[in-house]
Amino acid sequence: MTTTVSQELLPTGQPLDAARAEGERTYALDRAHVFHSWSAQEQITPMTILASEGSYVWDGAGNRMLDFSSQLVNTNIGHQHPKVVAAIQDQAAKLCTIAPQYANDARSEAARLIAERTPGDLNKVFFTNGGADANEHAVRMARLHTGRYKVLSRYRSYHGGTDTAINLTGDPRRWPNDYGNSGVVHFHGPFLYRSQFHSENDQQETERALEHLDQLIRLEGPNSIAAIVLESVPGTAGIMVPPPGYMAGVREICDRYGIVFIADEVMSGFGRTGKWFAIDHFGVVPDLITFAKGVNSGYVPLGGVAISEKIAATFANRPYPGGLTYSGHPLATAAAVATITAMEDERIVENAARIGSEILGPGLRGLADRHPSIGEVRGLGVFWAIELVADRATKEPLAPYGASSPAMNEVIAACKASGLLPFANFNRLHAVPPCTVTEAEVREGLAILDSVLAIADAHRNS
Amino acid sequence: MTTTVSQELLPTGQPLDAARAEGERTYALDRAHVFHSWSAQEQITPMTILASEGSYVWDGAGNRMLDFSSQLVNTNIGHQHPKVVAAIQDQAAKLCTIAPQYANDARSEAARLIAERTPGDLNKVFFTNGGADANEHAVRMARLHTGRYKVLSRYRSYHGGTDTAINLTGDPRRWPNDYGNSGVVHFHGPFLYRSQFHSENDQQETERALEHLDQLIRLEGPNSIAAIVLESVPGTAGIMVPPPGYMAGVREICDRYGIVFIADEVMSGFGRTGKWFAIDHFGVVPDLITFAKGVNSGYVPLGGVAISEKIAATFANRPYPGGLTYSGHPLATAAAVATITAMEDERIVENAARIGSEILGPGLRGLADRHPSIGEVRGLGVFWAIELVADRATKEPLAPYGASSPAMNEVIAACKASGLLPFANFNRLHAVPPCTVTEAEVREGLAILDSVLAIADAHRNS
Repeated sequence: MTTTVSQELLPTGQPLDAARAEGERTYALDRAHVFHSWSAQEQITPMTILASEGSYVWDGAGNRMLDFSSQLVNTNIGHQHPKVVAAIQDQAAKLCTIAPQYANDARSEAARLIAERTPGDLNKVFFTNGGADANEHAVRMARLHTGRYKVLSRYRSYHGGTDTAINLTGDPRRWPNDYGNSGVVHFHGPFLYRSQFHSENDQQETERALEHLDQLIRLEGPNSIAAIVLESVPGTAGIMVPPPGYMAGVREICDRYGIVFIADEVMSGFGRTGKWFAIDHFGVVPDLITFAKGVNSGYVPLGGVAISEKIAATFANRPYPGGLTYSGHPLATAAAVATITAMEDERIVENAARIGSEILGPGLRGLADRHPSIGEVRGLGVFWAIELVADRATKEPLAPYGASSPAMNEVIAACKASGLLPFANFNRLHAVPPCTVTEAEVREGLAILDSVLAIADAHRNS
Repeated sequence: MTTTVSQELLPTGQPLDAARAEGERTYALDRAHVFHSWSAQEQITPMTILASEGSYVWDGAGNRMLDFSSQLVNTNIGHQHPKVVAAIQDQAAKLCTIAPQYANDARSEAARLIAERTPGDLNKVFFTNGGADANEHAVRMARLHTGRYKVLSRYRSYHGGTDTAINLTGDPRRWPNDYGNSGVVHFHGPFLYRSQFHSENDQQETERALEHLDQLIRLEGPNSIAAIVLESVPGTAGIMVPPPGYMAGVREICDRYGIVFIADEVMSGFGRTGKWFAIDHFGVVPDLITFAKGVNSGYVPLGGVAISEKIAATFANRPYPGGLTYSGHPLATAAAVATITAMEDERIVENAARIGSEILGPGLRGLADRHPSIGEVRGLGVFWAIELVADRATKEPLAPYGASSPAMNEVIAACKASGLLPFANFNRLHAVPPCTVTEAEVREGLAILDSVLAIADAHRNS
């Protein structure tokens, strides 16, 4: 590590020496007893996190690191926002938990605040524990609403880790979980940089991607398809902002065939793109919106489905056959109320929009001017990806699809050694800081990326 | 309601008048915006809960009610346990959330405390958000460990609300979610009171149920079966404690055919039956244990899978293809650490065992002596069911399988009107108070049941 210990106390006030000793015990117990997500358990050496504040976290050695990942793109309001922390503490003192069949003030208020921000008539909210089960329940609602089974989703997408959700997913994490019986059919979404449709511009990509989707539906059988599930802006898969007209075209196709339009806003919602929901950039109203992460910045596990009046009506006098013990959990929904209120009061969504258009977007484009390893920069708000390539002309990625590479590993290690916590996927680095990030913090992150990208440049094909 | 307002202040110190007014707003917003689990949305009138403490909750009118449901059988440590509340508040101040790839002290410590209490070599813990995704991930581990797809589970069971979990489930909530492609095959477990095997005693029921399971496996093809998933004591389906020898027989069958034994302890774990895990009553070590609810009494959403060394080894050098943003969430695991520690320090598991054997079990059996509508009383610890029947000789239930009845609705309404919050399912009432319940509280609940059961008696066939 090239960074030095920056202070003797953590933001919690804990002396660093004591925290470091605790961190060693944490690591030893982790290796003995914790089974980690998406990992070969004996091939990982988890970084210990001792503390966090705003846009920073502190690792096990006490190094302060700029969090350009927002963890898993969830801490939209930054780490340890005092109003959200206080709301959790107050709700804990009042009422931690209550079963879903009762009415509870935190749950009611969170549902109101969410329903007021969703587009159109998505006025009812079914709360879940996270994004995966939100997508599970949205698909169930669509299947029962339409009486159809098949669901369409795009390649280059992520929708969660439970069985239906991982089968919706269009990335290699689906493969070991795909037994061919999930009823999901994948299609190609618009992605001009690596166009499946040989398009030369956004307009062509929109037209051809919509034509492809329409064709696929007509060949699969429109009456067999319950839903199309689409991240409004695909997240982990690469932050491919849909070109103008695409989402409106999907809405039109869904209407034509009686298909339910499910917008997955788990990663893109609650300010990430500089609007409350990414779908708001396109003026489109889906039938269902799934959310999690940013709704309360993940301070307490929470997800959900915002439901249109039409779909809610299907379950007005017929039981909805789904549920969970922690649906509308008081502590989780109290954190959502505080998060949404603070985002409103402190104009945090507006900050994300301004940072994106004035600082982060231009800054990343500036890096592309200086670093030939950058193939493309794309994004919105505080939701940006840079594609690293071995060759700009051929667009050969710096790591193959579904894997890493020595070059990418070097780049990621250099980010961490320079005090930047990156979000990396295959050949991409994502710049996804909290929506509360300041101009100075973004410039700090851009400077680190500037120095680190020399490594990527050196790894290009000679 | 026949109960009266018992005090002018809620346990939170809030004046009752103000709380009632808030409760009205809560109810109105709930009806406008909250979509409820397992319900026809326009046919429900959710009770508002204003506050809770120990074994009691306060409804929207300020009536104090004895919680003989532990909500959804999750508040094993009672409502608002001060040590767990304080631990949540302290962790909120320190670190609310961190991504699963890092090491964190609360997660490490919770994993240690759980691993120390699970039987055998179940030394690794994968944390999820609840019981449903715990079962989803356990099945995934079993499928990848064995290279087989099919999973066996019993009729009269509940395993959760996501797609794989609801298809494991053996109750009518599965039906609208079962498209016949989940790979789950259901078998009959032991249930002497309504024996599928025409058994006359426990020993026969054990032998015949094991013979049935073995036959089914041989007919389905042993090499096609990845796992058997069994609640150690089935919960919502009726608290049918397995007879002596049954669980050991299942373990032997699993060993014989190389099938993974998954014990679902979501409802039965963490003290509910008077032991840390219900499987401990049977001296059996499963390969995977799934848990949720009691692990932290649901104060923060948390579930998980405890994993044997053999299955963990499968994912030592091969990535486990599953994960979730909130796996091992610091706030949730800090609540687990405080819950387990308090249960240990205050001998809460021992209290559940003593209450069951000395007060609740004998008390319910005493009710059966006086009320001919009780067909059977069965249970362990603070985990008891009474079967209400229209006729003891024919065992005709007081409500048909999968439904309620006017008689059951009257009984449930009378419980609530008398200040008792019951847990009801079809023709059964479950007596499932917190593990912290006192002798006096149990006697209060038994007295209410005694008065209410006259209604059930009157509804018997004439």
